[in-house]
Amino acid sequence: MSQPNPDILAARQARVRAALGREGLEGIVLVHLPNIRYLTGFGGSSAIVVLTAARLVLMTDGRYTTEVDQTVKPACAALELVKVDTTYDDTLARVVGALGPVRLGIEGGHLSVSRYNLLTSRLSGGSGSGGAGSPELVPVERLVEAERLLKDEVEVALFREAAAMLDEAAAAVLGDLRAGQRESDVAADVDWCLKRAGFERTSFETIVASGPNAALPHARPGNRDLRAGDLVILDFGGVHGGYCVDMTRTVSVGTPGAEAQRLYDAVAGALSAAVEAVRPGATAGDVDSAARAVLDQAGLGQAFTHGTGHGLGLEVHEEPRIGPVRANAAGVPLATRDEVLAPGLVITVEPGVYVPGLGGVRIEDDVLVTAHGCEVLTRAPRDMLVI
Amino acid sequence: MSQPNPDILAARQARVRAALGREGLEGIVLVHLPNIRYLTGFGGSSAIVVLTAARLVLMTDGRYTTEVDQTVKPACAALELVKVDTTYDDTLARVVGALGPVRLGIEGGHLSVSRYNLLTSRLSGGSGSGGAGSPELVPVERLVEAERLLKDEVEVALFREAAAMLDEAAAAVLGDLRAGQRESDVAADVDWCLKRAGFERTSFETIVASGPNAALPHARPGNRDLRAGDLVILDFGGVHGGYCVDMTRTVSVGTPGAEAQRLYDAVAGALSAAVEAVRPGATAGDVDSAARAVLDQAGLGQAFTHGTGHGLGLEVHEEPRIGPVRANAAGVPLATRDEVLAPGLVITVEPGVYVPGLGGVRIEDDVLVTAHGCEVLTRAPRDMLVI
Repeated sequence: MSQPNPDILAARQARVRAALGREGLEGIVLVHLPNIRYLTGFGGSSAIVVLTAARLVLMTDGRYTTEVDQTVKPACAALELVKVDTTYDDTLARVVGALGPVRLGIEGGHLSVSRYNLLTSRLSGGSGSGGAGSPELVPVERLVEAERLLKDEVEVALFREAAAMLDEAAAAVLGDLRAGQRESDVAADVDWCLKRAGFERTSFETIVASGPNAALPHARPGNRDLRAGDLVILDFGGVHGGYCVDMTRTVSVGTPGAEAQRLYDAVAGALSAAVEAVRPGATAGDVDSAARAVLDQAGLGQAFTHGTGHGLGLEVHEEPRIGPVRANAAGVPLATRDEVLAPGLVITVEPGVYVPGLGGVRIEDDVLVTAHGCEVLTRAPRDMLVI
Repeated sequence: MSQPNPDILAARQARVRAALGREGLEGIVLVHLPNIRYLTGFGGSSAIVVLTAARLVLMTDGRYTTEVDQTVKPACAALELVKVDTTYDDTLARVVGALGPVRLGIEGGHLSVSRYNLLTSRLSGGSGSGGAGSPELVPVERLVEAERLLKDEVEVALFREAAAMLDEAAAAVLGDLRAGQRESDVAADVDWCLKRAGFERTSFETIVASGPNAALPHARPGNRDLRAGDLVILDFGGVHGGYCVDMTRTVSVGTPGAEAQRLYDAVAGALSAAVEAVRPGATAGDVDSAARAVLDQAGLGQAFTHGTGHGLGLEVHEEPRIGPVRANAAGVPLATRDEVLAPGLVITVEPGVYVPGLGGVRIEDDVLVTAHGCEVLTRAPRDMLVI
């Protein structure tokens, strides 16, 4: 597996430090684990990081200190490990308090009000009187996330490995699929295939939606058996080296009817058109429009009830959102900006149509934006599989 | 499956309303999904609830409005569904703003600083000047969680079903286990057995730790093959009706050596002693001490590097923590109170010993505190299985 190496981690840390400088901050407290993993390689379930211009402090408890010594420090020599002996809040207050009167960012979207209040109170000596010698805490939004958008060479290598593993899992899943199986049992098989293909875990709860259930974009696998005449949507993904991939295929149980075939062809056409639109300089809205135009043309625009895709990375739903620019009830566009695509973005492209009573079709691949266009990472056949 | 019925949900809402009254609050904003599920039965992945003395408002987006109409409202007639058409923050600010000048709790441990600041700013008209006609937001800690501690009859019924399913899964897992299998493949099999037993999903990442890996309490399944002489720790669980169960068994590959058998017997003895100590009026510390005394007696006290257990419910790690009362480096006890056990608590009991180089043993069952003692929910045999 491709592992972050010292050069890559140092480059990521340097980019975040530059972003801190642009915000007039002397450091940042990180509590969001994907951000911590991105900057240090730490893959455990509990840690806090303080990053300043000169220092990188990782606080974790006794469950993970051996892992940090063995796998994190070799790629991150400057990292200072602080073992949490009492509580994370205690340890954080001590580490941050020792920094003196600096402007310190906190992750506003991830830090809870309670932890923020406790930290503020500790830094001011608990009196609420504001310690003049303590850091000032400044909420920031998505500072590290913005640096995670464009994937570096180690991340791209991991995505290519993960996509190949997902293709392998898809072949196993689709090869085993039979009429008469129960949705929830198919989901169990899918998860087993994902693990056997080498994934650490699934990247979200596997969807197996058959017949009328396929008309619900977020159906959960239930007791329904796959039966002749069904369209079956299978949406699944895995995590490899921390990175999430995601694929959807739709299968017909028995020869599809004319309307089912028409839905399938329209969605496949929308997927192709959207992938064709993925290139540097295009916007997320352009990609969404390309898919939507094909489905509108087929009279299925109203049946396409979600966005065309989303970013992938250490989280399964990342920026950018590939969808129309949202407006409020009065038609005023909301703050969501229309992201311009750039090389290194990894996104899903997943148009779908949902027809109550009949069912639905969704087809999804993962795509890397390259210098001149895109590379489709997942390569499982897109033709409708008939079982 | 046992479903929350109107009477049960009304009783839960009444208890939370009483808790609000005790805190001098006229309502609360809930963002933590397990708390939302507890009070409404809503099982989706995105929602915000506002509960006041007179009202119960659930905000969710178009993915879930059908589910709310079909499965939530029938058990929760007073629920007002507000569809999120723009953003959750927009919708929340509108719903909360319309409440007028009331004292409103927010979940300090779950609400992010950003969402809190945005809400505060919207309520004051964005000027920061403090709208006199708007709610006052008061951070509260674990208000709904405290009401979730003692399980009601619907929850106890779900736990009994879930434990029986876990026993079934354990029998399948242990029956299939063979020397030569890879840890990660065994973990895939475990997850498959959990799903086939009827669980919605696993309640945490399955642990399969063999040989020297079993000396790490939080080892992740890796490439190592199970081989003669290994102790293998399998720690796994599932989610049923939203509720999490959790079990650990340790298996010997081939006839165990004398030291492995001694470790096993000591841990089995510690588990029995701890379960014996579970009764109303005993404290979490008493249960932990009972396990620890047996292992101390065997000279293994230092090898028992974690607490004895934790609460179970809609989350896999809930209060109470079953462990020694923690102290800081100076020996001063930390704020963690020593919880007194009461009928309706569901906890794990999971002593373990970890010996670097040799391996480890952990055995875990789930236990319901009853009026006079306890009911062991998980019933898979505790004798050492030799494969």
